[in-house]
Amino acid sequence: VIGTVDDLVTRVLAGELRAVARLCRLIDDDHPWAPAAVKAIHPRCGKAHVIGITGNPGSGKSTLVDQLIVRYRARGLTVAVVAVDPSSPYSGGALLGDRIRMQQHALDEGVFVRSLATRGHLGGLSRSATALVHVFDAAGFDVVLVETVGVGQAEVEIVRTAHTSVVVLVPGLGDEVQVLKAGVMEIADIFGLNKADRVGHDRLRQEINALLALHHPEPDEWVPQMASTVATVGTGVDELLAAIDAHRAYLAEPGHERRLRVQQQRDEFWMLFTDLMRRRAEERFGGTGPDADLLAALDAGELDPLSAAEQAMMRLSGPATK
Amino acid sequence: VIGTVDDLVTRVLAGELRAVARLCRLIDDDHPWAPAAVKAIHPRCGKAHVIGITGNPGSGKSTLVDQLIVRYRARGLTVAVVAVDPSSPYSGGALLGDRIRMQQHALDEGVFVRSLATRGHLGGLSRSATALVHVFDAAGFDVVLVETVGVGQAEVEIVRTAHTSVVVLVPGLGDEVQVLKAGVMEIADIFGLNKADRVGHDRLRQEINALLALHHPEPDEWVPQMASTVATVGTGVDELLAAIDAHRAYLAEPGHERRLRVQQQRDEFWMLFTDLMRRRAEERFGGTGPDADLLAALDAGELDPLSAAEQAMMRLSGPATK
Repeated sequence: VIGTVDDLVTRVLAGELRAVARLCRLIDDDHPWAPAAVKAIHPRCGKAHVIGITGNPGSGKSTLVDQLIVRYRARGLTVAVVAVDPSSPYSGGALLGDRIRMQQHALDEGVFVRSLATRGHLGGLSRSATALVHVFDAAGFDVVLVETVGVGQAEVEIVRTAHTSVVVLVPGLGDEVQVLKAGVMEIADIFGLNKADRVGHDRLRQEINALLALHHPEPDEWVPQMASTVATVGTGVDELLAAIDAHRAYLAEPGHERRLRVQQQRDEFWMLFTDLMRRRAEERFGGTGPDADLLAALDAGELDPLSAAEQAMMRLSGPATK
Repeated sequence: VIGTVDDLVTRVLAGELRAVARLCRLIDDDHPWAPAAVKAIHPRCGKAHVIGITGNPGSGKSTLVDQLIVRYRARGLTVAVVAVDPSSPYSGGALLGDRIRMQQHALDEGVFVRSLATRGHLGGLSRSATALVHVFDAAGFDVVLVETVGVGQAEVEIVRTAHTSVVVLVPGLGDEVQVLKAGVMEIADIFGLNKADRVGHDRLRQEINALLALHHPEPDEWVPQMASTVATVGTGVDELLAAIDAHRAYLAEPGHERRLRVQQQRDEFWMLFTDLMRRRAEERFGGTGPDADLLAALDAGELDPLSAAEQAMMRLSGPATK
């Protein structure tokens, strides 16, 4: 039995897996203990290497994650995985169920996989994913892999919380500008060109090279690398890992890690602030809240959405100060 | 010369295309006139049929949009398109440039295409896309097509602003559960199964049928329909259009449209409120703001992100009321 937040935090910091799992559940459930615990573990965060892996459905990034786990374990490092699945009322995350790789690594105490299928508004997903990364970091995992499905803006936000971001692309989607459309150029430290045995791989590689050539990095800026892989058979995974290692070495140089950390802490601040404000507003303007009249006027067509939003801001925080 | 917001609004409501283009630019640029204009046109919104088209890069949804434009024009209806591209500092939206279909319809005054490649935080994209839909609606366009790339949560939010949502899927992505992973089951009124001449189409159709069978709709609830298309040659587009018409007829039944409108206005309220609060907070806590000390403490490691976010909320809106 875990009796208090302090007790839970102590056990998480000691790397007790049952306590880690418990705190993950509390975060999922939005339990009142969760914020206190996340604040308490903060001083112990910052040691893990957090690696984001993102790509379209069907890009094979789960298989790549598997391959990376195997290699990190061979190095004697522990690995946690945060897998972010968008919500669906049909699946609730459950139809996908436990993943095959979870079974593969199920008996290995050095691997911890946690799926997230948060329903509800946008902020919830980023908030939970970031909190889980902190938990695994504080619990002493050496590597935290954050796998996100899709290439939407929310997913991009989550990948931004990683130290090293791998964007997985595949040839033959019949759309040469997929990498542009994907809107992920700006977050890629490394491009994983998976299914490299397929027709179109060389062309995809050329396109990315052409795009990278358009970008003129600052003298001290990281230049994105590429690694071609066939994840199903393990081809190229060592090269991908070498690129990840190179990026980690880059971050270890003076100033780089700190600059990234300051930016990421600010991103996290804004994400959490937005989420807190929205919850507070829901208490106030929601169904039984003291200011429920505002949304009633909106529903009745007496107010347009923008005027209602402006009034809500006024009621919550007063007139603009400038 | 357009001298005042009132003048601009009058011209937009009269359907003057130059004024429409001007207001679109003001919205893009976040010009101070934009909120006033969006509020002023609100009473004239609600007549257009807003159709969201979403799908992965390479799904061929732009080609489908083209085909729909041609058919709506043949019916004598005017069409506006809001194409949402995720931001990229490499492209800034410019590399994609004017789209092929824009040229195809360039001489047709009954078609207006507007691309969005908003940079910056999440709220900006939804806010601009929604505002543009209102502008085209108020300007008298009969149909507004909202095309979004990708299937992320922000994109899902944008598609939710449509009356009728078409999710475009393609066979052969090598991942049978793509529709689950896509997290779009809940927003699809209609599934467009494009590239239906490809291997895997029957299987994809069966999978969607199986997923739909898991869902037991209420007596009065819309049951998602499927249309198989080969957009490049126009096969099945009439069936897709028939499904869109059927959904519009469903919305025209008593109560249905109002229920949707109330929900969408509330979604829009929350989106706008979140965005306004964040802008206000940026003025207050940003670089030269009166409360810049908070982020300085965060950067210096004296505060963790969650504690900083809690303090920011306190400073902006006082202690929690419950």
